Amino acid sequence: MAERLVVIGGDATGMSAASQARRRRPADDLEIVAYERGRHVSYSACGIPYWIGGDTSGPDRLIARTAAEHRARGIDVRLGTEVTAVDPGGARVLVRDGDGHEQWTGYDHLVVATGALPVRPPIPGIDAPGVFGVQTLDDGEAVLRGLERTGVRTAVVVGGGYIGVEMAEAMLRHGLQVTLVDRNPQPMTTLDPDMGRMVREALEGLGVTVVSGSAVRGVLTDDTGRARAVATDDAEYPADLVVLGLGVRPNTALAQDAGLPLGAHSGLLTDRSMRVRGSERIWAGGDCVEVLNLVSGALQHIALGTHANKHGRIIGTNIGGGYATFPGVVGTAVSKVCDVEIARTGLKEDQARAAGLDFVTAVIESTSRAGYYPHAAPMTVKMLAERGTGRLLGVQIVGREGAAKRVDIGAVALTAGMTVGQMVDLDLGYAPPFSPVWDPVLVAARKAADAVAADIARPAAGSPDITPG
Amino acid sequence: MAERLVVIGGDATGMSAASQARRRRPADDLEIVAYERGRHVSYSACGIPYWIGGDTSGPDRLIARTAAEHRARGIDVRLGTEVTAVDPGGARVLVRDGDGHEQWTGYDHLVVATGALPVRPPIPGIDAPGVFGVQTLDDGEAVLRGLERTGVRTAVVVGGGYIGVEMAEAMLRHGLQVTLVDRNPQPMTTLDPDMGRMVREALEGLGVTVVSGSAVRGVLTDDTGRARAVATDDAEYPADLVVLGLGVRPNTALAQDAGLPLGAHSGLLTDRSMRVRGSERIWAGGDCVEVLNLVSGALQHIALGTHANKHGRIIGTNIGGGYATFPGVVGTAVSKVCDVEIARTGLKEDQARAAGLDFVTAVIESTSRAGYYPHAAPMTVKMLAERGTGRLLGVQIVGREGAAKRVDIGAVALTAGMTVGQMVDLDLGYAPPFSPVWDPVLVAARKAADAVAADIARPAAGSPDITPG
Repeated sequence: MAERLVVIGGDATGMSAASQARRRRPADDLEIVAYERGRHVSYSACGIPYWIGGDTSGPDRLIARTAAEHRARGIDVRLGTEVTAVDPGGARVLVRDGDGHEQWTGYDHLVVATGALPVRPPIPGIDAPGVFGVQTLDDGEAVLRGLERTGVRTAVVVGGGYIGVEMAEAMLRHGLQVTLVDRNPQPMTTLDPDMGRMVREALEGLGVTVVSGSAVRGVLTDDTGRARAVATDDAEYPADLVVLGLGVRPNTALAQDAGLPLGAHSGLLTDRSMRVRGSERIWAGGDCVEVLNLVSGALQHIALGTHANKHGRIIGTNIGGGYATFPGVVGTAVSKVCDVEIARTGLKEDQARAAGLDFVTAVIESTSRAGYYPHAAPMTVKMLAERGTGRLLGVQIVGREGAAKRVDIGAVALTAGMTVGQMVDLDLGYAPPFSPVWDPVLVAARKAADAVAADIARPAAGSPDITPG
Repeated sequence: MAERLVVIGGDATGMSAASQARRRRPADDLEIVAYERGRHVSYSACGIPYWIGGDTSGPDRLIARTAAEHRARGIDVRLGTEVTAVDPGGARVLVRDGDGHEQWTGYDHLVVATGALPVRPPIPGIDAPGVFGVQTLDDGEAVLRGLERTGVRTAVVVGGGYIGVEMAEAMLRHGLQVTLVDRNPQPMTTLDPDMGRMVREALEGLGVTVVSGSAVRGVLTDDTGRARAVATDDAEYPADLVVLGLGVRPNTALAQDAGLPLGAHSGLLTDRSMRVRGSERIWAGGDCVEVLNLVSGALQHIALGTHANKHGRIIGTNIGGGYATFPGVVGTAVSKVCDVEIARTGLKEDQARAAGLDFVTAVIESTSRAGYYPHAAPMTVKMLAERGTGRLLGVQIVGREGAAKRVDIGAVALTAGMTVGQMVDLDLGYAPPFSPVWDPVLVAARKAADAVAADIARPAAGSPDITPG
């Protein structure tokens, strides 16, 4: 008799797992049903800011594969259908359909791909009309409808992370006066403050008012109950439209209720094959799990479509009878705000310290192309290397065109455990349209290697002088 | 008493070595004299096609540091001065100044940085007016003067390598009717033929007539003795201007006369510290040496400014009392013709075979950005992986904006000795403006890993069937 695979959540991890399992096992061997409480499957949440900003049409363009397409491939997708309980002992899930009917259904394999939920602080006015999240395609449509209202001139974006700066750009594109309110001292806290400052300056250069170190205390509303301003402790900022970009947390209430193991960041804990720890038949991946950071050795929660897709493929391969494992992440992320590119991989300073790692740093300025080549653009590269060993710990880049994807050099070097000394003479692609004769990453590696050597040569503080024989 | 460093050749390697040595040792400890037979030092030969094409002004913009600037830093640069003999036993060189006077001068350290010479086939008409090389700044000026002549409408570029395709583009920019004549079956033989075909199609799409598999037999001249056409065995191609882009060979006649060791490609042989093998005081680097290819294990001649600069820095560090070594290359090169980007690293098929390596290949099509993001451009990635082990052997990329520098991912992976299986889940930067959710390099690695596995699973040809128990 055929086995039964149940998937909870129809986005990247869930549908990748289903597709990969289907590719490896025919329908008479494996029945696959995927429950999605929303109206869409397999869509690119990362694309929503670009849809809102007008870079792409939506929502159809953001859907990689529709429910109908999945069904044509033998995956029974149920939209508007929510799994409300998991019974691992009984190997069954409780499913509520669109009409509210609930029914238990059994599984041989279960994939928990419930994703993440946007952080919504419990402040007054947070649920007022005119306040928007940007996680689902429905959110995207709501923001666009909000922008179409007459008299919309001001927007406040709450949160200075990737979504926040991307949405600030999108609002600028609509001609709005934009304020970005962030409780941190600098936007983009995935970078060290010295690099984050460059993002702040870039935002300000574009005309965004950046308010840092201020927590939002409430959304103020007009007579009709609609958002009109955002209040911090010190001030009010006019907001015909409020966009929440405060990040996400793992959506794991269902898993927790089922007694599945959660980590310190509330994400599900899995083994290398993406099987939930302690479970035989339950798998999990994507935004609802914690992942191993190969540089810090610690578990982390990182919501990124690229990880979610990898997890799904690994899960589907394993359920399908193959063998695949997820090695972990090194913490790579790239983004942009208008023409300013932002990238990071590995650990930044406070992350390194938290991991018990001591380090030296190097910051260099260079250009994306040979200095004499048109459109050579400035680029700042920061590198962290471990004291003594010189092992690369992290790379941060802020620049313009051609800057961000250079971080991949660091990502591979981190994965391979290279030292900055080993990176100094890497044979990177050189031609005037693509790089100065010394690639900026090589210049940073050289400076970092020098810093490692200088640190080793420095006499330890308080150590007695060594008097030669 | 101060030691004396003599540098032969004032470009990347020579002047980098001199500068680095000077930084580490003051003038009263190390006297430095650099002999350059031309009129310029420290210039970017790689920039000449872009200067000719109008992307940058010249020649001053291509000069990183003038002779006067070097002199101000305590390096005695002698332009128009040629070293005509080296006497390693006597630790001295014979120097001929601009007036033709020759004199022996001693050294404590000698840097041989004589670079490379452009290949000029001994065919009729090769020295006619209207035939140009593109190696020196003087060459660049000569081509530009040639382009200014009235009635110049046609150009033939001889050679389909990097310089050839770059010069074909430069000639197009001047509105000429361009023919590229190449004796190989495809242009860009640094790529496999299937990838080179894409470069050919790109050139043809731009309006270049590409004549492959045809050796040039002569340059035909008009009544005044000026070039008017290029003849192959089969045809004549009109050429008001002929540009030679046939590559270069190490300029090592001087070294050979001095009894210094040359390799199979006529390049000087050095140890890891860039000291000439068997010599105590003689160093060499850049376009006149052979380098170790870390993937094939064989020595190679690669003329590239980025290697030359690294060599110079290593030599200067060692002469300066520090310690540095050159690990070798992995064969990375990037280029472009108009908006088509071309990149390669590691070994292509015939190079792998020549190294005794057997391999599987994978070719994939993807895009530079998320498919829904503006300007997402197609990209083809080819990967070679060793049979059995799955070790990455090479990467080739042809695409548009955002394609070429992705080859750096392969360069680092090759340096680290990664397998394609280890590359499948690399944590590369993902955001819609920068990459599809699966970076093209990851897609290629996955296909290559599948090919390695399929190859292992395939029963050996001629092996008996295995009959279970």
